[in-house]
Amino acid sequence: MIDLMRYVKAIEPVDTFYGQKAKERENCLTKPQGSLGRLENLAIEIASMKREAVPQIDRKVIFTFAGDHGVVSEGVSAFPQEVTPQMVQNFINEGAAINVLARQAGAEVLIADFGVACAMEIDHPGFRSCKIGRGTENFAKGPAMSHEDALKSIKTGIEIFEQEHRKKKIDLAGTGEMGIGNTTPATAILAVLSGENIENIVGRGTGIDDDTLIRKIRAIKEGIRVNQPHRNNGIEILEKVGGYEIGGLVGVILAAAHNRVPVLIDGFISTSAALIANLICPLSAQYMFAAHQSEERGHQKMLEILGKAPILNLGLRLGEGTGAALAMNIIDAAIRIINQMATFESAGVSNKTN
Amino acid sequence: MIDLMRYVKAIEPVDTFYGQKAKERENCLTKPQGSLGRLENLAIEIASMKREAVPQIDRKVIFTFAGDHGVVSEGVSAFPQEVTPQMVQNFINEGAAINVLARQAGAEVLIADFGVACAMEIDHPGFRSCKIGRGTENFAKGPAMSHEDALKSIKTGIEIFEQEHRKKKIDLAGTGEMGIGNTTPATAILAVLSGENIENIVGRGTGIDDDTLIRKIRAIKEGIRVNQPHRNNGIEILEKVGGYEIGGLVGVILAAAHNRVPVLIDGFISTSAALIANLICPLSAQYMFAAHQSEERGHQKMLEILGKAPILNLGLRLGEGTGAALAMNIIDAAIRIINQMATFESAGVSNKTN
Repeated sequence: MIDLMRYVKAIEPVDTFYGQKAKERENCLTKPQGSLGRLENLAIEIASMKREAVPQIDRKVIFTFAGDHGVVSEGVSAFPQEVTPQMVQNFINEGAAINVLARQAGAEVLIADFGVACAMEIDHPGFRSCKIGRGTENFAKGPAMSHEDALKSIKTGIEIFEQEHRKKKIDLAGTGEMGIGNTTPATAILAVLSGENIENIVGRGTGIDDDTLIRKIRAIKEGIRVNQPHRNNGIEILEKVGGYEIGGLVGVILAAAHNRVPVLIDGFISTSAALIANLICPLSAQYMFAAHQSEERGHQKMLEILGKAPILNLGLRLGEGTGAALAMNIIDAAIRIINQMATFESAGVSNKTN
Repeated sequence: MIDLMRYVKAIEPVDTFYGQKAKERENCLTKPQGSLGRLENLAIEIASMKREAVPQIDRKVIFTFAGDHGVVSEGVSAFPQEVTPQMVQNFINEGAAINVLARQAGAEVLIADFGVACAMEIDHPGFRSCKIGRGTENFAKGPAMSHEDALKSIKTGIEIFEQEHRKKKIDLAGTGEMGIGNTTPATAILAVLSGENIENIVGRGTGIDDDTLIRKIRAIKEGIRVNQPHRNNGIEILEKVGGYEIGGLVGVILAAAHNRVPVLIDGFISTSAALIANLICPLSAQYMFAAHQSEERGHQKMLEILGKAPILNLGLRLGEGTGAALAMNIIDAAIRIINQMATFESAGVSNKTN
């Protein structure tokens, strides 16, 4: 397997020379300068990431990783754990929200089992078996996983991205996940990183009732008390209160940055992976877009830490990569604008007079 | 021509029975209830509008109407008036932002000349010649148009919609416009309707400088002082401080409601037309969606009056229907979700336990 620290050290900052070139082009197009707002900025940022003055986006891939969580034994979720493999099967059968929205966006979905609690025997070109373990340990009682497994989950995420990227260049990546109970580790990650009170950042996930919410808060508090993860050590946070699918997404995000591929971070759980990636390598954040503002309560705090403004705000709280898929339509629009619009000169349109 | 008052009286409220049916279906799909947030609500609202429990959207049309404004002689715009016909030509040549974004959304763009100041001789299937006059009068000195022309612009908008809808059923409409200086009448419309101080709602349109802004404020104040339009009379407001393309869009919006077709209202100028449509027939607002939150300052106030939350917030201030085209991607996603997702039963996924 790769040497993670060496891999991460090779991540380079974006090159704003290309963003400047993109901006010059935007300013020649037949519209008042800046009047397409965020669409113009998205194209400019992508130019800097990809080092192309007029960036192209062909292949889009959403990485949707599944994993189970020992902490569900504390009674933190509204759905039974069997839903994780059932939903993975639903992804393979193309019946889930992520399938519908990725199809609309013209994106591929790559599903991987990073830690579903039962055996998953699926033979499908869109599925990878990368099981690190059969669900994490209950982090309210001790570390969610070993240090080795935390590293392995990240490296496996990197390898999956690298394999796909070698097969055919990825132009735009998205993150997604499925794992019953996984807003609990994501909230724990945010709590450790931010130092915020759990009560201020905990949310209702898939829609839990008051009793379940109380158990969720208690489990997170216990997890932090028992494990004492250091707030500046991303790998340690992942090991102690994280999840296998979250580690896999950390790997995808680092690999995207390594390969200068823009990556759309989906919702609450994906953003917890982005926070860890950002701790491991702050430069990786330069390649991230916040796809949307999740309805899950702590998400806004996460985006503040990353300094990212969400592209969409549609009250989503599903995960799977659904927000990333939706935001791909907006990125696609931004790329079409800079590629396809006429210039003042080519269209014979008069420019501003004052 | 049609009898406007009779036409408008035939507009019926949406039927929430179908929305309820749509909601029941959303609740059976393999996701936590409500977890797709606004996407679920959009499909539910469209079901009520179209009276289809599982609504379909096939044909999408954006109506982009052009007109000039006598008030530009007060020096209120950053661009010369010749840009209006130049941009109409750019629309026909498919080089403008609206062309690029409509193509992405799979929408047709119907361009019409409602009042460009010069002759427009264009023979193109996507163009309609509906000139009410060669630009409006300068409303800082008297009414922008006659009462008859105000009515004619609305009725012509209705007829264009009806013609298209007869040709092939429109499932989703969008509004758009082009007219140098037309944030000035749109601001005047908002000022009259809302009673707000001009200074609180005026914006910089295509990007005017401070001196131009002062002239714009003065022109609007003069227009209201000289014309004294009654704040509850939509047709009178259009006549005194409106524009021909704005009247045309009032017609499109009323016709959409009449035919139970959801209509995406674009930005600041389109929303001024929506405000007038809402005054003429408050039921028409039930068929409107606010496509986006414009960067133009008074737009938020407009949406508050209509009670509409924008679908997108991307800092756009271009018009043409660009925000409507972008929001069509989100509507399309909502419709795909309700049509294409598997149910808990069909996918064999366990449902919530608490």
